Amino acid sequence: MNLSLRAVCRIIGLVLLVIGASMIPSLAVAGIYSEMPALLAFLSTILIAGVCGFILIRFGHRSTAILKVRDGFLIVTLCWIVSALIGAVPFVISQSIPSFIDAFFETCSGFSTTGASILSDVEALPKSILFWRSFTHWIGGMGILIFAIALMPSLGINGQNIAVSEAPGPTLDKITPKMSDTAKVLYAVYIIFTVVETVLLCLGGLSLYDALIHTFGSVGTGGYSNYGDSVAHFNSAYVDIVITVFMVLSGANFNLYYMSLRRGIRTLFKDAEFRFYLFITASVTALISLNLLLSNYYESIGQAVRYSAFQTASILTTTGFATTDFDLWPTFSKMLLMLLMFIGGCSSSTGGGVKVIRVLILLKLIRRGIATRLHPSAIVNVKLNGSTVPADTVTAIANHAFLYIVVIFISTILISLNNFNLVTSFTSVITCLGNIGPGFELVGPTANFSIYAGPAKVLLSFLMLAGRLELFTLFILLTPKFWNQDH
Amino acid sequence: MNLSLRAVCRIIGLVLLVIGASMIPSLAVAGIYSEMPALLAFLSTILIAGVCGFILIRFGHRSTAILKVRDGFLIVTLCWIVSALIGAVPFVISQSIPSFIDAFFETCSGFSTTGASILSDVEALPKSILFWRSFTHWIGGMGILIFAIALMPSLGINGQNIAVSEAPGPTLDKITPKMSDTAKVLYAVYIIFTVVETVLLCLGGLSLYDALIHTFGSVGTGGYSNYGDSVAHFNSAYVDIVITVFMVLSGANFNLYYMSLRRGIRTLFKDAEFRFYLFITASVTALISLNLLLSNYYESIGQAVRYSAFQTASILTTTGFATTDFDLWPTFSKMLLMLLMFIGGCSSSTGGGVKVIRVLILLKLIRRGIATRLHPSAIVNVKLNGSTVPADTVTAIANHAFLYIVVIFISTILISLNNFNLVTSFTSVITCLGNIGPGFELVGPTANFSIYAGPAKVLLSFLMLAGRLELFTLFILLTPKFWNQDH
Repeated sequence: MNLSLRAVCRIIGLVLLVIGASMIPSLAVAGIYSEMPALLAFLSTILIAGVCGFILIRFGHRSTAILKVRDGFLIVTLCWIVSALIGAVPFVISQSIPSFIDAFFETCSGFSTTGASILSDVEALPKSILFWRSFTHWIGGMGILIFAIALMPSLGINGQNIAVSEAPGPTLDKITPKMSDTAKVLYAVYIIFTVVETVLLCLGGLSLYDALIHTFGSVGTGGYSNYGDSVAHFNSAYVDIVITVFMVLSGANFNLYYMSLRRGIRTLFKDAEFRFYLFITASVTALISLNLLLSNYYESIGQAVRYSAFQTASILTTTGFATTDFDLWPTFSKMLLMLLMFIGGCSSSTGGGVKVIRVLILLKLIRRGIATRLHPSAIVNVKLNGSTVPADTVTAIANHAFLYIVVIFISTILISLNNFNLVTSFTSVITCLGNIGPGFELVGPTANFSIYAGPAKVLLSFLMLAGRLELFTLFILLTPKFWNQDH
Repeated sequence: MNLSLRAVCRIIGLVLLVIGASMIPSLAVAGIYSEMPALLAFLSTILIAGVCGFILIRFGHRSTAILKVRDGFLIVTLCWIVSALIGAVPFVISQSIPSFIDAFFETCSGFSTTGASILSDVEALPKSILFWRSFTHWIGGMGILIFAIALMPSLGINGQNIAVSEAPGPTLDKITPKMSDTAKVLYAVYIIFTVVETVLLCLGGLSLYDALIHTFGSVGTGGYSNYGDSVAHFNSAYVDIVITVFMVLSGANFNLYYMSLRRGIRTLFKDAEFRFYLFITASVTALISLNLLLSNYYESIGQAVRYSAFQTASILTTTGFATTDFDLWPTFSKMLLMLLMFIGGCSSSTGGGVKVIRVLILLKLIRRGIATRLHPSAIVNVKLNGSTVPADTVTAIANHAFLYIVVIFISTILISLNNFNLVTSFTSVITCLGNIGPGFELVGPTANFSIYAGPAKVLLSFLMLAGRLELFTLFILLTPKFWNQDH
C-alpha cells in the first residue's frame, strides 16, 4: 500500500475523531434535558467514531508524503461522505429518524449548511438531537477539513492541496503565509460572530438553547430551526433584524473581515464583491418590498421591508430561514428570490450557490463580449478590484457556471421521475445544489422533502455535498480520467 | 449626412420592397378566395411599402461605402423591426387583429419563426391573412437580409458585415467564396425542401393550401398552423411522419446539405454537430416514449414513438407544432422538452435556441475544465471535427450562453409583473427567446399569449427578435458604448 493511501486513511481517521468530539456538546445537552435514548445514541456514536478513527490513524502511520492535487479531491469528498455517514448515526440509534437514508439526507443537509429537511414535525424530536442537527451547520459552515487542516502540520501532513478542494469560492487573496494560520484566523472571526449573535438573541428574550440553535443556523448559513414555522415562531422584529444582520455578515468574505480589522473598515467597502453583494441585497429588498406593498400583501412599509429583507438575506446567503411563507408572494417577488438562489454568498463565506464573485466576473465577461463585438481587434481584460483577473481564472469560472447548469438540468430530469410538478422538481434541485434549504410549491418554506422516494433523497444528498464542495471536487471523481492514471 | 447612414436608408428601402413583394402571393390567395377586406389590406400595405421603399432608396443614393461592423448591427436590427412593423399592417387594416401591438407580436413571432400567437380562435381569420401569417415564417426562416444580401452587390453595397450579424449560429465553414453565392445556395436548398414537403403533404390528402401553410411552418421551423389544434387536426400518422422528417431536416445545417451533395453523403454524418443533433433527437425520443409507455399514457409503442418523435423534433428544432397537449405529459417528459428548449437547432439552420454546436462546445469546455483540474499545467484545447476551436470562438460562445441566461432571468422577472405563475412566466420567456412557440401551463400548446398585457407583449416581441438575431446584434444597440463613439 502506497504512502498517499496511508495518508488518506490517517486524515479520515482524524476527521472521525473531530466529528466524534463535536458530538460532546450534544451529549451534554442530552444530559441536561435527561434525554436517555439520545444520550445513549451520542455515547455509542462517539465510541464508534473514536474506535474507527484510532484504527485508521494507527493504520496510516506518520507519513510526510506531500499529497498530490488528485489526492486532495479524493480526501475531501471521502471526508465529507464519512462525516455525513457518522453524523447520521445518532438520529438512527435514537430512533428520531428511523430510516438511515432520511438521516443521511438530514446530515448531508446539515453539514453542507443546506437546511433542507425530511422532518414533517421537527418539534417532536428530542432537544439534544435537534441541537446536533443544528450543530452540523456550525461545523460544516466553516468546513470540516479547514479545522483538520489547522491540526495537520502537527501530524506531518501538508494540507495545501486539500484546502484548494474545500475552499469556498475562488480565493484571490492569501491573508496569512501559512494555510494553518489562515484556518485559525477564519475560525476566530467565526467564533466571535457566534458568541455575539447568541448574546444578542438571548437579549431578545430567547432561551440560550433557542439562541444557540438559531445562531448555528445563521452564522453557518444553514437554516435548521427547532420550530416548525422557523424564525416566524418568535414573531419579533428584533429577532428578525438580528438574524438578518448575521445572515448578511456570514454570507460575506471572512478573509475580508480579518483584513479590515488590520487595515481599516475602508478595505471592506472597497472590495468589489462585497459592494456588489450589498447592492444585490439592498436592491432586491427594495424591489420585493415595493411589490408586496403594491399588491397589498403588507400594509406598512416597515412590515414590507422587515419581511422582504429577511427573506432576501436568507435566500441570497443560502441560509434558508423563513419568517413568512414566501411561496404565497406574487410571482415577481418569487422570481427575484429564484434569481438569488443562483447567486449565493460571497467567496470565503459560509454561504453556498454560484458565489457573488463568480456572478460579478461573468457579468463583466458579458460586457467584455459586447466590447469585443464592437472592436474585434481590441483585447479587453476582465478587471476586479483594479487588477486584471487571469484568463485561466475567468475560464475556470465559466466552466464552473456551465457545469452548474448541466448538473441542474440532469438532476431535475432525474428528480422529475418522481412526477412532482416542474417548479417543485426544479427548485428541489437548485435549493439543494445551492445549499439553500427551501424551494417553491411542494418543497416551499412550510413544506419538506419527505415527499421524495429513497433514490431521489440520495441524489439530493449528493447534490448538497457537490454544491458545498463547489462541484468539481466531487464530479472529478466520477470521471474515468481520474481513475485511469498512475499516481 | 454621412455615407453609411445613406447606405442604411438604401438597405431599409430595399427590405421594404422585398417585404412588399412578398405579400403578392397572399394577395393572390385573397383574390382566389374572394376575401375583399384582406385583398384591400394587402394592396394598401404593398402600396405603403413600395412608396416608402422607393423614397428611402432614392434618398440613400448609390453608395459604395463599405459598411462597418457597427453599421451591420444597426442595419440588421432596423430591418427586422421595420419588417415586423410593415408585416403587421395587413392584420390591422383587415381588422383580423385590430390591436396593433397584437399584430406586431404576431408578425415578430412569424418572421422570427417563433410561432407564438395571441389568437384565441385562429380558424376565424380569412385564409389569405393566415397565409401571410405563415408565409412570414418562410421568409424569416432563411433570414430577411440573406435575401437582400443576394441582391446587394448589384446595388453596390458590400454585405459582408451585415451577414455576420444575421447569420444563424457560428458559421465555421465558408462554402462559397462570395457571400451572395452562399445566399443563393442556401435558398436553393430551402426551395427544394419547400417543394418536396408540399408535394408529400398533398399526397397525404391535404389541400394545397393546408400543405403550403404547414410546409412554411416546418421548413421555416416556425409553427403557425391554420387550425386551432395544430397538426393534430389531420390525425394522420403519415402527415406526422412527413412533418417530423422535415422539421428535423430544417433544424440541421443547410451548408452541410450543399456540401454533402458535392462531396458525398458521408460528409453529413462525419459532422460533429449533425451527429450530436441526431443523437439528441433519437435519445430524447426514446426516453420520452419509454416514460409515456411506462406511465400508461399511450398503449402501443408505435403511438408512443409517433407522438414522442413529433414533439421532440418540434421543440428541438424550435418549430412549435403540436400533435398532442404535451403539457399533460409526466414531469420527466416535460423536463426533457424543457431541456430541448435550451438547445435549439444546428448552426446555419432555420431553427433558433442556443444552437447545437454551442451546446456541444460548452460540454467540451466542461470536459476540458475537469482535465485542467487534474493536470493544472496541461493545456487542453477544445476540438471539433478534428481541428482546434479558436480560443476566441470558445469565449464568444461562453459569452453568448451567459448573455442568454441573464436575458432569461431579467425578462422572466419583468414578465412576472403580470403575476402569472412561475412556469408560465419562465416558459413564456424561453419559448419566445428560443423562437419555439408554445411553453407550459398558461402558454402551453393548447393556449396562447393573449393573456399578457401590452407591455409584456412588446417585451416578448423584442425577445423573439433578439433570439432570432442571436442576442448580441440587438443587445449591442442598447449599450451606451455603441452610441458613444465616432463612426
